[in-house]
Amino acid sequence: MTIGRSEQVALTRGLLLRTAERMFAEEGISTVSNRRISEAAGQGNNFAVGYHFGGKLELLRAILGHHNAAIEPLRRTMLSDLGPEMGMREWISCLVRPQTDYLRSLGTPTYFARFCAQITTDPKYGPLLYEQKDVSEELITVLTGMYAALPSLPPSVLEIRDTMARNMIVLTLADHERACAAGEASRTWEDIGEQLVDALIGVWLAPVTNE
Amino acid sequence: MTIGRSEQVALTRGLLLRTAERMFAEEGISTVSNRRISEAAGQGNNFAVGYHFGGKLELLRAILGHHNAAIEPLRRTMLSDLGPEMGMREWISCLVRPQTDYLRSLGTPTYFARFCAQITTDPKYGPLLYEQKDVSEELITVLTGMYAALPSLPPSVLEIRDTMARNMIVLTLADHERACAAGEASRTWEDIGEQLVDALIGVWLAPVTNE
Repeated sequence: MTIGRSEQVALTRGLLLRTAERMFAEEGISTVSNRRISEAAGQGNNFAVGYHFGGKLELLRAILGHHNAAIEPLRRTMLSDLGPEMGMREWISCLVRPQTDYLRSLGTPTYFARFCAQITTDPKYGPLLYEQKDVSEELITVLTGMYAALPSLPPSVLEIRDTMARNMIVLTLADHERACAAGEASRTWEDIGEQLVDALIGVWLAPVTNE
Repeated sequence: MTIGRSEQVALTRGLLLRTAERMFAEEGISTVSNRRISEAAGQGNNFAVGYHFGGKLELLRAILGHHNAAIEPLRRTMLSDLGPEMGMREWISCLVRPQTDYLRSLGTPTYFARFCAQITTDPKYGPLLYEQKDVSEELITVLTGMYAALPSLPPSVLEIRDTMARNMIVLTLADHERACAAGEASRTWEDIGEQLVDALIGVWLAPVTNE
């Protein structure tokens, strides 16, 4: 049995995606060149990343898109399970739990959470992490519902707490993923999700001293 | 007037520190080689970092040590100003405000907050950020006081919220520093400090759902 041309292309693309994600997660985004990814993926052609994705920006988008596409159905299921009566805790859970459920479903080690943490602190590619929300209908539903369920906050406080909340999710998931990969995790993904939801509620409900 | 040998060494060392901090902050820790730092600092000898610091680990420690030594007196002053009647808010302020006051005192642009954010997500050097606390008496006083003022939490919840709180401080300061450097900051360092203290109180006071 021979593999057709389009299957070969899909296999190579998947191999490059997984290799790049692992290298980015472990070494940082800027450190890893397209050439090194191509080499590590065993591609004779050092320009394989350029050929298959166009460039690093498109490669990063493809990695994010791949995972977000898998998280969306989990978010949709959770939204429909919870029904119409949703408070702040339920909305925040719909933001966090599909991510922890997804990471758990992949087994150990995963690299996606550390990959996201690397993007977050990358001066050049940082904004990428949140442009994807524009294309996920479920995420827009969750964020809209969550903002409506929050206590009334001055816009500038809402904005900074939103950034704090996002950073908290990204770095907490990355810390746990690192602990899992090192065999040092004392918690489950499910528990990490619960701890995050509790803390995020604290961030959103915290009284505002000055504005 | 000629510059003596020891002054020359101190000048070169200071120049390497500032150059390295800026490059690490803007590009990440692993991306930047000792050779590139030496070159960017205009050192004819490409091994200047090795000669003056020993290696990257010692260089990172020297950058952290330089700033922490300057933050300590601010922490000491704040502790003595606040007097003996301190609650959770005052202790958390003693953790946050000396950092924001220090960053403000440096003028714009600063690099230290982004440098800390880069270390935080660096798989190899991440733990460096918190080993320094062992040598600052003021920071130990603040952390001891803060932990004693917190509501009673199961040890494992205390641990994860501690990590969340640290990450929140580091990334929020880095985000603001980046906005300042880009001329896009809509807040002051003082206000960032207040927003952080409010949100951190929320994290620590959030009820625990499951343990």
